[in-house]
Amino acid sequence: MKSATEVIATDLDLLSHQLRAEFDSLSGRSVLIAGGAGFLGYYLVQGALHWNRTHATQPPILVTVLDNFIRGVPGWLMALEQDPNLRLLKHDITQTLPAALGDVEYLIHAASIASPTYYRKFPIETMDANVNGLRFLLEYSLAQKQKGKPVEGVLYYSSSEIYGDPTRDSIPTPESYRGYVSCTGPRACYDESKRYGETLCVNFARQYGLPIKVARPFNNYGPGLKITDGRVIPDFARNILGGEDIVMFSDGSARRTFCYVADAVAGYYKILVKGGSGEAYNIGVETPEISMAELADRVRNSVTIRK
Amino acid sequence: MKSATEVIATDLDLLSHQLRAEFDSLSGRSVLIAGGAGFLGYYLVQGALHWNRTHATQPPILVTVLDNFIRGVPGWLMALEQDPNLRLLKHDITQTLPAALGDVEYLIHAASIASPTYYRKFPIETMDANVNGLRFLLEYSLAQKQKGKPVEGVLYYSSSEIYGDPTRDSIPTPESYRGYVSCTGPRACYDESKRYGETLCVNFARQYGLPIKVARPFNNYGPGLKITDGRVIPDFARNILGGEDIVMFSDGSARRTFCYVADAVAGYYKILVKGGSGEAYNIGVETPEISMAELADRVRNSVTIRK
Repeated sequence: MKSATEVIATDLDLLSHQLRAEFDSLSGRSVLIAGGAGFLGYYLVQGALHWNRTHATQPPILVTVLDNFIRGVPGWLMALEQDPNLRLLKHDITQTLPAALGDVEYLIHAASIASPTYYRKFPIETMDANVNGLRFLLEYSLAQKQKGKPVEGVLYYSSSEIYGDPTRDSIPTPESYRGYVSCTGPRACYDESKRYGETLCVNFARQYGLPIKVARPFNNYGPGLKITDGRVIPDFARNILGGEDIVMFSDGSARRTFCYVADAVAGYYKILVKGGSGEAYNIGVETPEISMAELADRVRNSVTIRK
Repeated sequence: MKSATEVIATDLDLLSHQLRAEFDSLSGRSVLIAGGAGFLGYYLVQGALHWNRTHATQPPILVTVLDNFIRGVPGWLMALEQDPNLRLLKHDITQTLPAALGDVEYLIHAASIASPTYYRKFPIETMDANVNGLRFLLEYSLAQKQKGKPVEGVLYYSSSEIYGDPTRDSIPTPESYRGYVSCTGPRACYDESKRYGETLCVNFARQYGLPIKVARPFNNYGPGLKITDGRVIPDFARNILGGEDIVMFSDGSARRTFCYVADAVAGYYKILVKGGSGEAYNIGVETPEISMAELADRVRNSVTIRK
């Protein structure tokens, strides 16, 4: 069985290969990854820096991680601190962007509270990161255009949660499905701020001719997801590792698909570079759709095997 | 047949009567009506000032109209300028509230672009008035609480459009229906910003214990609606008055209910004073639901009769 280090090394090689064309486009460009110290940042950042190392004859991709580092700088990012093509900017995305940002050509907004445990506790902070944080990036993009330094791509992380609870005949859910979502319920701070974020994106794209694209991820999992994240897979894993029974907060019948994060990151970079302006894209797998009860079984079995 | 002046006088008397309890609660209080120079402001403002005049022994309701007066101060409001209980503040709701506002106990956010003709032309301004304008009022309410001058009621105007296109079995639409709404379509700048506005309202209400209430109006019509408004009834009326055929931008089959604005305003004041904190209320009539083609016939007939 492969070690975690081997798995990640293989993934990074694969990303460099799958994203040949996209990384070529990003070569020599400055890419801002807001929330780059988080789960999605793990492969977004390492993917680009790995490509730099393996394509030394081409101008490197310059990566700026902008993050509030609320839990400190994670170990994997600390290990990269000496990389000449990486810059860390400590900043709260809900505040005006720092002048130190300078000119960047690509922007990725991955600064969000995505775990239900946390967004229920911090609903207003969740909304502000999704909406006000996005707005600062959109206004930056507009200002860059006006000063003759147009950005080349903006990627907003929306969520499959914008669909809410689709009717059975809308699963798998096409991008054209409008969603069945409460705007006042306990999850609205997340779902509805992602939806309104999309509305901001498409209207800024249309009104100002900006290359803004939207990704709708379906449950990502894999390396970079902290065990304390509060989402379902790390929670189940934590139960098992702690020698406890898995604790389910429902009857276990809800069904979801899960997409390995390295595969999803390939999709995200494709959207950033090649996605249509003002367009939204599902990123996920269509099958298997499994119940939370089945997921618990899978986590139990895989953790047992590794002992 | 009654003249317009007589109709309005009757409506104002009726409002004073229907809203006895609510106006009693507002007596001696300061009420901010953002967007008070607009269509809904017409009866909101005049209703309160009329009650003052007819209840001279009670402390008056103090009305502040905050508006950008984008088309100037309307005639009906100009005529009230000498009223000692009315104050006009020229201000753009998408900017920080003016210090001159001082302490108010009730806030009504009716500053919005509600006509499709205009919101399609100014999508970002529409979103900003609905969301950022609201945010300033919510932050004001929070600050007032922190300085020991808590507000007593905040009313946000959402819209029946937050339901989008309900399934047939969800018409008439209960408040619990979550809506089927595109967050990226041409109407999203309006629909989705109203939805996100509701999300802000319920979360500020819950997190900070603020008395914020939401109204979901179903197509209001009546005095105060400008002939150039761009909504369907004034557009049809304008066609007829101009001696033209009615111009329909669809096949005329879409069905809606229409609620007379003075009746709706009674509902709005009830929500402001008695509505549950963090609750949203439909304001409209359940029947008749008529098609746009039938509406055109009604407008044609009523304008003919009045000639």
